[in-house]
Amino acid sequence: MTTHSLGAIFDARSVAVVGASRDPNKAAHQILKSLLEEGFTGKVFPVNPRETEILGQRCYSSVLEIPEPVDLIVVGVPAVHVPGVMREAAQRGDVRGAVIISAGFAETGRPEGIALQQEVVAIARQAGIRVIGPNCIGVMNTRNRLTTSFSPGVKLAPGSIGFFTQSGAAGGSLLLLAGEQPVPLGFSKFAHVGNMSDVTNLEVLEYYETDPTVKVIVGYMEGVRDGRRLMALADRITRKKPILLLKVGRTAVGAQATLSHTGALAGSDDVYDAAFAQCGILRVNTMEELVDAAKALTLCPLPRGNRIAILTEAGGPGIIAMDEVGSDPAVTLAPMTPETQEALTRILPPMASVCKPNGYVDLTAAAMAREHGEALRLALADPNVDAAILISLPPTFLPAEQVAEAVAAAAAGHRKPVVACFMTGECMAPARRYLEERGIPTFETPDRAARALINLIKAAARLQTAPEPAEEVAAAGEQRVAVAAPAGDRPGPAPAPPGPEAEEPAPVHPAIAAAATAGRHLLEPEAIGLLADYGVPTLPARWVRTPEEALAAADELGYPVVLKVVSPQILHKSDVGGVKLNLRDRDAVARAYHDLMARVRSAAPAAEIAGVLVTPFVTGGTETIVGLVRDPQFGPVVMFGLGGIYAEVFRDVRFRVAPFSREEALRMIGETRVSALLRGFRGSPPLDVEALADLLVAVGEIGLRNPPIAEMDLNPVRVLERGLAVLDARVVLRPARDTRHLDGGH
Amino acid sequence: MTTHSLGAIFDARSVAVVGASRDPNKAAHQILKSLLEEGFTGKVFPVNPRETEILGQRCYSSVLEIPEPVDLIVVGVPAVHVPGVMREAAQRGDVRGAVIISAGFAETGRPEGIALQQEVVAIARQAGIRVIGPNCIGVMNTRNRLTTSFSPGVKLAPGSIGFFTQSGAAGGSLLLLAGEQPVPLGFSKFAHVGNMSDVTNLEVLEYYETDPTVKVIVGYMEGVRDGRRLMALADRITRKKPILLLKVGRTAVGAQATLSHTGALAGSDDVYDAAFAQCGILRVNTMEELVDAAKALTLCPLPRGNRIAILTEAGGPGIIAMDEVGSDPAVTLAPMTPETQEALTRILPPMASVCKPNGYVDLTAAAMAREHGEALRLALADPNVDAAILISLPPTFLPAEQVAEAVAAAAAGHRKPVVACFMTGECMAPARRYLEERGIPTFETPDRAARALINLIKAAARLQTAPEPAEEVAAAGEQRVAVAAPAGDRPGPAPAPPGPEAEEPAPVHPAIAAAATAGRHLLEPEAIGLLADYGVPTLPARWVRTPEEALAAADELGYPVVLKVVSPQILHKSDVGGVKLNLRDRDAVARAYHDLMARVRSAAPAAEIAGVLVTPFVTGGTETIVGLVRDPQFGPVVMFGLGGIYAEVFRDVRFRVAPFSREEALRMIGETRVSALLRGFRGSPPLDVEALADLLVAVGEIGLRNPPIAEMDLNPVRVLERGLAVLDARVVLRPARDTRHLDGGH
Repeated sequence: MTTHSLGAIFDARSVAVVGASRDPNKAAHQILKSLLEEGFTGKVFPVNPRETEILGQRCYSSVLEIPEPVDLIVVGVPAVHVPGVMREAAQRGDVRGAVIISAGFAETGRPEGIALQQEVVAIARQAGIRVIGPNCIGVMNTRNRLTTSFSPGVKLAPGSIGFFTQSGAAGGSLLLLAGEQPVPLGFSKFAHVGNMSDVTNLEVLEYYETDPTVKVIVGYMEGVRDGRRLMALADRITRKKPILLLKVGRTAVGAQATLSHTGALAGSDDVYDAAFAQCGILRVNTMEELVDAAKALTLCPLPRGNRIAILTEAGGPGIIAMDEVGSDPAVTLAPMTPETQEALTRILPPMASVCKPNGYVDLTAAAMAREHGEALRLALADPNVDAAILISLPPTFLPAEQVAEAVAAAAAGHRKPVVACFMTGECMAPARRYLEERGIPTFETPDRAARALINLIKAAARLQTAPEPAEEVAAAGEQRVAVAAPAGDRPGPAPAPPGPEAEEPAPVHPAIAAAATAGRHLLEPEAIGLLADYGVPTLPARWVRTPEEALAAADELGYPVVLKVVSPQILHKSDVGGVKLNLRDRDAVARAYHDLMARVRSAAPAAEIAGVLVTPFVTGGTETIVGLVRDPQFGPVVMFGLGGIYAEVFRDVRFRVAPFSREEALRMIGETRVSALLRGFRGSPPLDVEALADLLVAVGEIGLRNPPIAEMDLNPVRVLERGLAVLDARVVLRPARDTRHLDGGH
Repeated sequence: MTTHSLGAIFDARSVAVVGASRDPNKAAHQILKSLLEEGFTGKVFPVNPRETEILGQRCYSSVLEIPEPVDLIVVGVPAVHVPGVMREAAQRGDVRGAVIISAGFAETGRPEGIALQQEVVAIARQAGIRVIGPNCIGVMNTRNRLTTSFSPGVKLAPGSIGFFTQSGAAGGSLLLLAGEQPVPLGFSKFAHVGNMSDVTNLEVLEYYETDPTVKVIVGYMEGVRDGRRLMALADRITRKKPILLLKVGRTAVGAQATLSHTGALAGSDDVYDAAFAQCGILRVNTMEELVDAAKALTLCPLPRGNRIAILTEAGGPGIIAMDEVGSDPAVTLAPMTPETQEALTRILPPMASVCKPNGYVDLTAAAMAREHGEALRLALADPNVDAAILISLPPTFLPAEQVAEAVAAAAAGHRKPVVACFMTGECMAPARRYLEERGIPTFETPDRAARALINLIKAAARLQTAPEPAEEVAAAGEQRVAVAAPAGDRPGPAPAPPGPEAEEPAPVHPAIAAAATAGRHLLEPEAIGLLADYGVPTLPARWVRTPEEALAAADELGYPVVLKVVSPQILHKSDVGGVKLNLRDRDAVARAYHDLMARVRSAAPAAEIAGVLVTPFVTGGTETIVGLVRDPQFGPVVMFGLGGIYAEVFRDVRFRVAPFSREEALRMIGETRVSALLRGFRGSPPLDVEALADLLVAVGEIGLRNPPIAEMDLNPVRVLERGLAVLDARVVLRPARDTRHLDGGH
């Protein structure tokens, strides 16, 4: 039990089921039935004015009539009657929570539904009642056997999983999948909060954080409204408890449906990927992967590293597992010691294939139960092995239960995770159950076993390397505070938590304020000034208005130079002939100036020309692109990737939600393919990745502190051997009316 | 029954089980038991000199003693006794086939095992006995209930699948998975041919081709020795019967294990992908995907197109299906007509979300059985819908069986495939069985349902667009014959079949013959000549030996020009300063010539300099790479992709096994990302993709006709608006001793 206000709901000692009925096809009947059958440890009061008794329980005509204390009401009456029920609950004074399963509220999109929901919440707020729903399945708690679910067949085994879902149907299906494992997965709590009129998924997350019976958090999500709050929360929680999320809407077409389904604005999937990785959320892609990973997380000890041994009785299934391990750079086959290899060779049948490649052992079908156990024992004893996958297809003459016994006995001697695949089907169920009861999760196929272990390894890495934030980057750059990492034996730097966007009006850069007032975007010289003010090294640049000034500027900067038109109306300068590169002498500059003016005037006659920018012509290094977008869910997001003509073809870009640390920026750079060129490629010298990381951090800071900025493009940014050159900068502001809406108040 | 020689084994009317025993732990006991329990329609004779009766059957002391005809012997005695058994079988004269399950032969890698196997095969060949194995599970035929399997629990339902497997264990597991579906998958034949001492997997494929009871071929493969023969066979078969293959060893690390497991040389996985696509084999990645796809292929009518409607009762699972559909460019959401959309809106509950996006219908949990049926009926009646996915999570008050009945009734009126996902678990088993009995395959999760349908659509596309080869490209280029496509209503060109490599000595190009004799690689001028002789447009080039000749050549070709050193010892010219680009006048040429000579002599003092090549300097267009490699399994394989500095970073390359048609070359180009640049990108003009396709076809032909070539690199090839420019050509020959080994005889 915790002191969190949701505790009053999950730990309720008495529940009134309002709308309970004798009709078994009604949801409230099912709920009442489930409460009684599951053995809810508190008191249950059916409420229905037309009945006196349901399922052997005395029925009350209203909640006001119940003579004993009522902690929680579960409401299953038609939407129009819900406010009345809420008023009665408020009148009682003892009700602390309401789970409203009825539909017909804001989710309809109709004014009357929205108004009904607002009315319900207003009554609840005034009375201090927390509301879950409406339009939801509600909650389950295996500790007091509380359930408000009306899904058929859903029965939760007690355990350590805290589950939340954005879809009742998907949530129910996942619970059923979890319940049909050889040993059903164990849950502490379940929550489907429906329309989130009061209690949100994020609040459920906060509650699970404080609940000591929840050790692993598992969720199903279609989208999130306040991405930054989710990140701040998850960043804190995942240092203590893993969060596994099935976030659907991976593809553009899938995300389109997310939009129509939940009404939540869906962020780009790339941004979700980045955000989840930044705050330690482990993302999975299918329902089976979610259940498999949750099983591994609840049954296994935490691995200390990512080196996996594969022991298999059959080549084919072993290779399938190996393909899965080989496809994820986060894990590797275990480099077993020569001693282990010799010992394995000694004890295994002569046909066995030991460590070809290293970490992979084919026991062959001649291996008996003893060999399975011995091989596993040797593998787990090897200091170079962090975890093991055991695959067995026991032939007729070898009972699977014997193999399972040997495997469990071998695993029991070590605090290292072992996952197993006993193939195939129902005949393996007893052996699988035996293993799962002893902390060895089992899976239908080798690839699923391997994938579950990989997810476990990733979750463990997050828990072990990031005990607490090593560095706090406050939302507003000026308040940046460095907090030293606490002493401890856990290695590695922690990424900076993203935190909420600044809630106080940020000190917007004067050039931006001026442009916003004038209703235009930034001119390039202003954009360069903005970068410089945030500490970004920029090229010397002269903003000139005449050919003579251009010549003087070129003489001063040194040749060759570049001329670029400056105009508030021209965002794409090259398209109108507004850029002249590689001008080697005074003659070239003079000719280029006149030609540029003529072309621009002809191509964009309406554009006001505010002059010409003269900068040095820089070559060499590698062309990259740095960008900033303001995501509707996650706010300022920084992009980095390959620049130049191939940028759009290869989409070799990565995202990070701002703010983030320099270390995170370096990881971001490292995830792109172009980073191979930056590190020095085929004899070319390594380029200044450190300067690039500083630039990415600064761009994030600019985005956070200047809400009027909608987008920013630094393209190309040439990364050089020493430093870098931002060759073009474009800053696009949002229409003024947008600002308030998206940032919630400046 | 077919006239294929394997028919004598699969259709045997009498079987002797040699080595049958009373010990239930012995494989031959299990085989005898299976034959009796499965109800083999022929006669069964146990053979064991130490027994008189086993499992109620009279036991014979040797095969010679059996007084009735024996078609097939199944041999389970220790390896050393197998030749004796074979001799007795040969002596009988009536035995047509032998399934040798015993191990201890060539798979041990030991000389005595290899010798034993050779002895067995020699006896069999002389006696006209076909041998399956040794070291195998053998065969099953559901028509005569023949089985030689000793896997526990494997029972095959009769049906239309012909199955072959390279691993007994993986094969047995797949059969078990297939047997545990709501309605077990139906098989015609099973084959595991073990060491392939006589009968190979390819011969099993040929047999399945001729067997009218086999409609769908499903296989498990780790590698293939003769890739070209597999392709030729599959190219023919997949025009009539789909071939589904689980080919493991996807990743480098997985392929390493393939190597150690089977001893077969594993080709690069990219080449397998290309080869399978070229010959119409449908590749899957997991055991579950194989079973799921086989289920869809055996139960569903063939779709006529790739437009999928998704009908779901719940948003979350619907989006998961949509993500799967959106991730594969081979399929698309169905663009339903306005009429269908209106009709759906009319019949569905008001909360339903119809065609947001188009092709996706969320029926909502308020949909009853009738709405499920009606919606499906409307979707299938839409001419823009080729197939449908139906996802249902029937709530308490809606029995799943009712929904299944409505769905089956709606689907019955149309010849369009419907796949279903009824979630979740055991409680849905009766509904799922009902659907599968009526031709609607069902799956555990929405992503698996979608994936199975996508595989069905791909298989159908192959069957429908490729009735017969449209064009035969004979292995040796000179014998190229164009065969007109037969008249018919099936659209689209068929890719050229790859066919076996030339078995007659090819007319090797004289330059290659000369270089091979001299034990060196081709000089660049020779490589250019080779290309020109195969019809590839090459740049004019002058091979000069003095500065004066270089100047004369440059004057003749026109400026700017390029100089490149010619030396048999220098393969990487730029590395030794052997290339001078963009020489604009006589002065530049003269200076460059001397500088080049000085640098090369200093960097590669031992290299013999055979002169300098003068060519025009070409810019513009897009830089690509064209290559040829000789794959150990598939022979000459052509590569195409992005060139320049990004080539190795992005590995944007595709492969095709030669020979292939111009259309196939165009598809290959289209599969690369760089093709976006070739098609004309952001206003740049489209480049000459046709010329590029011709080049790729020619390079394949060069590879086929010139076995001494090991590798060829045309890098870069600049694709221009008209034509292309091969800017460098490198042809590497194989060491002479290699030639015979890899090509089997020239």
